[in-house]
Amino acid sequence: AMLSARLGPGNPVADHYVYAICGDGDLMEGVSAEAASFAGHNRLGRLVVLYDDNGITIDGKTTISFSGEDVTRRFEGYGWQVQAVDGRDREGIDRALGAARAERDRPSLIRVRTTIGYGAPKKAGTSAVHGAALGEEELLAAKRNLGWPESPRFLVPEDVRAFFARLAQERRAEADARRGQERAWRARSPEGARLLDAHASRALPPDLRARLLEGADGADSTRKLGSFLIQKAAALVPALAGGSADLNESNLTELKGAGSVEPGRFGGRNVHFGVREHAMGSIANGMAYDGLHLPFAATFLVFADYMRPPVRLAALSGIQVIYVWTHDSILLGEDGPTHQPVEHLTALRAIPNLHLVRPADGLETALAWAHALERRGGPTGLVLTRQKLPRVARAGFDPEAAARGGYLVQEAPGATLTVMATGSELPLAQAALEILARKGVAARLVSVPCLACLEAQPEEYREALLPRSHRLCAVEAGRGTEWWRWVGRDGLVVGVERFGASAPEKALAEAYGLTPAAVATKIERWLAV
Amino acid sequence: AMLSARLGPGNPVADHYVYAICGDGDLMEGVSAEAASFAGHNRLGRLVVLYDDNGITIDGKTTISFSGEDVTRRFEGYGWQVQAVDGRDREGIDRALGAARAERDRPSLIRVRTTIGYGAPKKAGTSAVHGAALGEEELLAAKRNLGWPESPRFLVPEDVRAFFARLAQERRAEADARRGQERAWRARSPEGARLLDAHASRALPPDLRARLLEGADGADSTRKLGSFLIQKAAALVPALAGGSADLNESNLTELKGAGSVEPGRFGGRNVHFGVREHAMGSIANGMAYDGLHLPFAATFLVFADYMRPPVRLAALSGIQVIYVWTHDSILLGEDGPTHQPVEHLTALRAIPNLHLVRPADGLETALAWAHALERRGGPTGLVLTRQKLPRVARAGFDPEAAARGGYLVQEAPGATLTVMATGSELPLAQAALEILARKGVAARLVSVPCLACLEAQPEEYREALLPRSHRLCAVEAGRGTEWWRWVGRDGLVVGVERFGASAPEKALAEAYGLTPAAVATKIERWLAV
Repeated sequence: AMLSARLGPGNPVADHYVYAICGDGDLMEGVSAEAASFAGHNRLGRLVVLYDDNGITIDGKTTISFSGEDVTRRFEGYGWQVQAVDGRDREGIDRALGAARAERDRPSLIRVRTTIGYGAPKKAGTSAVHGAALGEEELLAAKRNLGWPESPRFLVPEDVRAFFARLAQERRAEADARRGQERAWRARSPEGARLLDAHASRALPPDLRARLLEGADGADSTRKLGSFLIQKAAALVPALAGGSADLNESNLTELKGAGSVEPGRFGGRNVHFGVREHAMGSIANGMAYDGLHLPFAATFLVFADYMRPPVRLAALSGIQVIYVWTHDSILLGEDGPTHQPVEHLTALRAIPNLHLVRPADGLETALAWAHALERRGGPTGLVLTRQKLPRVARAGFDPEAAARGGYLVQEAPGATLTVMATGSELPLAQAALEILARKGVAARLVSVPCLACLEAQPEEYREALLPRSHRLCAVEAGRGTEWWRWVGRDGLVVGVERFGASAPEKALAEAYGLTPAAVATKIERWLAV
Repeated sequence: AMLSARLGPGNPVADHYVYAICGDGDLMEGVSAEAASFAGHNRLGRLVVLYDDNGITIDGKTTISFSGEDVTRRFEGYGWQVQAVDGRDREGIDRALGAARAERDRPSLIRVRTTIGYGAPKKAGTSAVHGAALGEEELLAAKRNLGWPESPRFLVPEDVRAFFARLAQERRAEADARRGQERAWRARSPEGARLLDAHASRALPPDLRARLLEGADGADSTRKLGSFLIQKAAALVPALAGGSADLNESNLTELKGAGSVEPGRFGGRNVHFGVREHAMGSIANGMAYDGLHLPFAATFLVFADYMRPPVRLAALSGIQVIYVWTHDSILLGEDGPTHQPVEHLTALRAIPNLHLVRPADGLETALAWAHALERRGGPTGLVLTRQKLPRVARAGFDPEAAARGGYLVQEAPGATLTVMATGSELPLAQAALEILARKGVAARLVSVPCLACLEAQPEEYREALLPRSHRLCAVEAGRGTEWWRWVGRDGLVVGVERFGASAPEKALAEAYGLTPAAVATKIERWLAV
């Protein structure tokens, strides 16, 4: 619907429906409430949900946990059309589906009242058929009970076969007709066709990296630098669309001038997900699967916990979704420990196939966005600061090296100490090394914006970057678990091993030992052991 | 209500109400839907929620994301009483609260229509007052607008002061009267008083550990061994109560003969949370804060993702909650990768102040339960297998050593190799070491059921257990990130670095290199480097 609104009349994109089938358990899970509220608000009239209303969950009848709920009234409250029909009434289901399709202003829920294990004489209507097969005896009894031939074991009757063969033929003809319509539309609307193709291919300009790097070397918080970059990305990649879970003003991810999706009006590229992180992640997955958008979803890093299940699913499914997680450490300040991530970097890096990128400045943020846009085989999370960062002093910047996930920022002659850091702790470590340099300690400084990318590099690259012969230290304002692999058992990890606290950034940095002086002292003491 | 139902008539426990205040954002979050459905189902008539219905979220008016929803209808669908009142109508609010208290069969939602920043001439009714102070100028303008004295800056008028002083006096008298009633009840019901005290103190028998260990050394899945132990724990600790998110048959955590909480009937100790993991964790937190129960909450380990926010809050708040997470690795079998935890051990261990215990057999499961029951300062997660485990061969078992979180299981003379393992991988590592022993490799085997507990031990203990001079290896059917700290950069972690797959346990063990032969080969090759 979003793309269709941009392509103009007659385009072939949105002329279809989205069907879902769900059960009692789905309607108990909070994510279904978030998604249903979102769908009702936005008047997603092409969404049709069939609810298998069988009154049974794994533990028994829904009366033990779900009987208080009038699902019809609840979904009417969400702004849905609700119908009810008996699961054995084929014509009734067909009529209900017709009415659901005809209702274009509201999503539709069809309560299909069914009996689980219908026909099985002993187990019908019980939780015994929820997660287990009937078993040979009950299967035969059910067939007898239903007047169904006992063999072959899996029978497709001739009339059913014929019906589906006819259906396939009809659908093929329909598909041909649609392809014809699309060709006609393409001839009529070459500009629309180009936009559709750009969406479908999620095409990127060949010089994407250079375009993003241009002008990105300002000094600011990485969320503000990210805001500059998402505008560029949106201009370069028409398929990019998404939004924030009611934190636009904080995540700074609004695509300027691109309009918003509004109830029944889908032409914008900014989606207002509301305070619904779990649904936001799930909707982004749906958009990625649909294939016509490159979706992004933004919230505070600490609230990544609310959307972990869909993030995991994106990683498991190998689909391209971009997360923008800002306010990425206790240094966000006064919001306090409920809003301060501590364990989240570790917990997210633990998800296989999720790339977490935590850039230290504008140049790294540009590369982070380039990586997120380029990476097709899985989701990428961009982890950005709330607070303004001091500038990283650079003799030069090699995008090729930085894109490897870890690279050398500076090196003092004769160094036998290597310090690695990410994000806001790169300039912190740099300042600490300056203090140490004045005391005669020679060190190398390595930036690791993407640990997963670095771990994918050849062993020689990693060994040259983080030599075993060196004393190794990692600085990151998080739990730090994953850095031990790289610093070794006698290495040093300067992290945050306990929950945060509510105070201004400076006070927190003092209290948690995240000032240049405190980091320098920790390194000095550790070197002395 | 649960305890009150068990204490009999006249007891002082439940004669009060639970009030909550929430906003639009709370009602958008899925957890509120889960909790509201649960409360409606169970007819929690003493719950009164005041909804600050101001039409504003951080990003602007709720019309951008929440306008489709008829909250009244939705909550009526959940089985709630719903009233609406104007926020400036003090008597109306009082009447609504009275009606909410009088309604004992349904929870109550009172929609209080308010204007955010009421009286502020420029900012009233806008998101500008959601997360920021008014500012000096607007504050003065609001005071002028409302006819309120400009100074002192924070004024409590005399009549308000007098009203609250009188209220405090009345409440003190009321509290005295209640204490008198409680004394009378205690005299009348000494048995009830003892039960109340056992709940309030969450008293444990002094020989808890020994009692739990008795008869716990069977060979089975740790969830079955856990089922045996939770029955014992329930008998020894009356305050223990809780349940599963519709997985009783799988988690095996039902307290036998203890009855279930049912709509309006609260005498049981088993709570049917439904398919609502997020609310389950939050309700467990509420029970822990209330202080009269020691709550437990059970689901599959992979679904710990759905309840991460309340688990984090329990850890941050330092409250005692017990999680039972079963089906703890890809070896659960056919349910496939969506149900197979890989990164969850790492992700949960990253939460500060959460103790994760992954026992390897019945003895360790007994100690795990003892730890969970004894630990007051934070939550404990018990991580248990679906699959049956081979018996751990033991020359002896020292509960004191095991309770340290990591301990020596066996040691071959002259060993310079130490292998650590947890849960189902302890017998696996033991079998692998048997193969290696036949090839002349001498090794030590260390069990680490609770890494957080081991990390709290003195450095000497840890060094003696996992000597730096040894080649060190860890075996755990999970991501394994946290073991690098202990094996060192040249150590070996035998883990699962990618998502699982759907197959029988044996086939998965083969495919993922988690057979004794495969583990032995990996260790052998690594030793040879």
